[in-house]
Amino acid sequence: MISGWGPDDLTGLTAREGGVTAAAGFRAAGVVAGVKASGRPDLAVVAADAVVPFAAKTTTNQVKASSCRWTDAVAASGAARGVVINAGNANVCTPDGAEHTQRMATATAHLLGCAADQVAVMSTGVIGVALPIERIEQALPHVVGELSETGGPVAAQAIMTTDTRTKQAAFEVVDEHGRTAVVAGMAKGVGMIEPTMATLLVVLTTDAEVAPHDLDGILTRVVSQTFNRISVDGDRSTSDTAVVMASGQRGQVDLDAIERGLYAVCADLAHQVIADGEGATRVAGVRVTSAACDSDAERVARAVATSLLVRAALHGADPNWGRVLMAIGNAGVELDLGRVEVAWGSIPVCRGGVAVDFDAAAVTAVMSRPEVELTIDLGAGHGEAMMLTCDLTPEYVSFNADYTT
Amino acid sequence: MISGWGPDDLTGLTAREGGVTAAAGFRAAGVVAGVKASGRPDLAVVAADAVVPFAAKTTTNQVKASSCRWTDAVAASGAARGVVINAGNANVCTPDGAEHTQRMATATAHLLGCAADQVAVMSTGVIGVALPIERIEQALPHVVGELSETGGPVAAQAIMTTDTRTKQAAFEVVDEHGRTAVVAGMAKGVGMIEPTMATLLVVLTTDAEVAPHDLDGILTRVVSQTFNRISVDGDRSTSDTAVVMASGQRGQVDLDAIERGLYAVCADLAHQVIADGEGATRVAGVRVTSAACDSDAERVARAVATSLLVRAALHGADPNWGRVLMAIGNAGVELDLGRVEVAWGSIPVCRGGVAVDFDAAAVTAVMSRPEVELTIDLGAGHGEAMMLTCDLTPEYVSFNADYTT
Repeated sequence: MISGWGPDDLTGLTAREGGVTAAAGFRAAGVVAGVKASGRPDLAVVAADAVVPFAAKTTTNQVKASSCRWTDAVAASGAARGVVINAGNANVCTPDGAEHTQRMATATAHLLGCAADQVAVMSTGVIGVALPIERIEQALPHVVGELSETGGPVAAQAIMTTDTRTKQAAFEVVDEHGRTAVVAGMAKGVGMIEPTMATLLVVLTTDAEVAPHDLDGILTRVVSQTFNRISVDGDRSTSDTAVVMASGQRGQVDLDAIERGLYAVCADLAHQVIADGEGATRVAGVRVTSAACDSDAERVARAVATSLLVRAALHGADPNWGRVLMAIGNAGVELDLGRVEVAWGSIPVCRGGVAVDFDAAAVTAVMSRPEVELTIDLGAGHGEAMMLTCDLTPEYVSFNADYTT
Repeated sequence: MISGWGPDDLTGLTAREGGVTAAAGFRAAGVVAGVKASGRPDLAVVAADAVVPFAAKTTTNQVKASSCRWTDAVAASGAARGVVINAGNANVCTPDGAEHTQRMATATAHLLGCAADQVAVMSTGVIGVALPIERIEQALPHVVGELSETGGPVAAQAIMTTDTRTKQAAFEVVDEHGRTAVVAGMAKGVGMIEPTMATLLVVLTTDAEVAPHDLDGILTRVVSQTFNRISVDGDRSTSDTAVVMASGQRGQVDLDAIERGLYAVCADLAHQVIADGEGATRVAGVRVTSAACDSDAERVARAVATSLLVRAALHGADPNWGRVLMAIGNAGVELDLGRVEVAWGSIPVCRGGVAVDFDAAAVTAVMSRPEVELTIDLGAGHGEAMMLTCDLTPEYVSFNADYTT
């Protein structure tokens, strides 16, 4: 993992297998409903054994999927029994979108034995095409029948669109009193693809006892440090959703430990998303230090991580610090250029705003690795922030240019 | 030209040859100073016959070239004799940058017989490498000796970096009283290239009599509608500069006519810049209508014109309106999705926020043209804006990835 990404201190965190079902009190399954033309699994359910505390974060895009609006309403109540997810169709910009979302929730709730507003919904895939809701309704008894305590990995497969691999993480955490719980999750997303709003879906589970209000606070903070700090193409989707459910089966555990564990899970999943970014050949961690404040640091990190020219230089392993300075200057943050330092890996390339005499071949070697660190010190204060991004490649452009033609 | 780009009404505008020297009272020249490794012309001067009203707009990037700061100071006085421009080295992030800018102005002023602070300076090219100021000082007597009333096209060549062609425009304008004047200009810029901050330089001239304050107002308004409404890669340079000089040799002409002429010149030059964008195969005009206000319209147009996925779809001529909706939703503007209409050329693809049944092959045909129009109607009010952009191509990425390696 790139240094500085995720929790500083991993003490007491132990990796676990099993994805979302690594946490006790959850079952999951994935089946083929026939939404994807490829015939691959495309319908998943993750369900708690009972109605449990629930929180969610959904996209800030103004063109927002009806599934996101539905899930927002479920989160407002603070409780859910589970989540139903289809891949292959985002059900966005469709005439009957809201009705189809409601039908997905209603049918799932009927099978689980709860109220419709206790089931969150996620849809990902092509937009502007009517959701084949009958196929989903027909497949739902099958997927609910398959729910199992080892179903996490199968569910992780069924939510993929153009992902090349599943994205799962789980850790056991231990608090100061020696109490343990598992925090776990799965994600999908590799960019914005097709006439598609594919993008980021995240399901998180824990078997600790966490009140809805606490769960929401933890999710807000953790998402802001992880899924809101990655960029494949700067294009934010209409469907981005992250949900978390707490079964409570392992009882109370210090919230600090839960938050640290969830942070580790989300940092891991976010890193997996970037590493699988469309066309990407390497991941870069852009770390900004000594900014006047954290939000200045974030703006600079974001400007650099989303610059096409920085990301193209990263692809070519071109020690092109002029572009980094250009991007820093565009962040809309007051700068004292004479204090700015830039380093690729541990090799400074710019100090005091001007060139350092550096070994270009050594920088190219550092930038050619699958994981690259870019550090920008603004010399202004104590603000810090980090973003993950990936290189911009001709393959990304070709893939996104030629999809339907 | 793409409809809606530039002045609505071209009555009374007559195209002229000759670039910046099409306006009376200006001489220009370009020579080889040896800044470019290629041995191509790289030093230009555009001079008025006397000190004349002058205005300038320079980059808003916080990492700002010393030449931009110098030119800002010249513009603050409202008067200049001319401008000296080198290509091949941006003189940015260099220890002696400010001193070298001053030396360029001082040497040019000495040869023209004016004060140093009456000469604007522009530098474009690689950053972080010391400017070979001696070579420029040695070549300046030569370029000033070559100044001629037909030197516009030669100067336009000498300011190119990776431009594949010169960018020039000139129009004769006539006002309501039948009085005429010429407005003219040249530009360079195709993207951000190399460890380079190449980008946009613009020199505008007119032989009308215009006071410095009026010149500044006209330049501000015209630049905001043209050079601030184009995007090749969303990366704003450290060196962007547009200057205008008014010789007054043709006497007074209504300012409305001058402004319309300058708008036409800048719209033409900006279009030439986008058409020559790195790797670009087509130009798109993104026109937003019926926004709540003009600034909402501009935000939406900018979000769409800078979206990687929209620009990749444009390259593949993929009638991918879902991406357009995604980008609209990311503009940070309040939307009533049920009123949004999107059309490629004259073919609607989305109405009321949902798919229209359209002929995909016909849309692909429209999108395959060298000039493509995308219209977005927000159904909210009377705000309008337009942006020009170009397609994102694998060649753009390869070019910017592999430059130094």
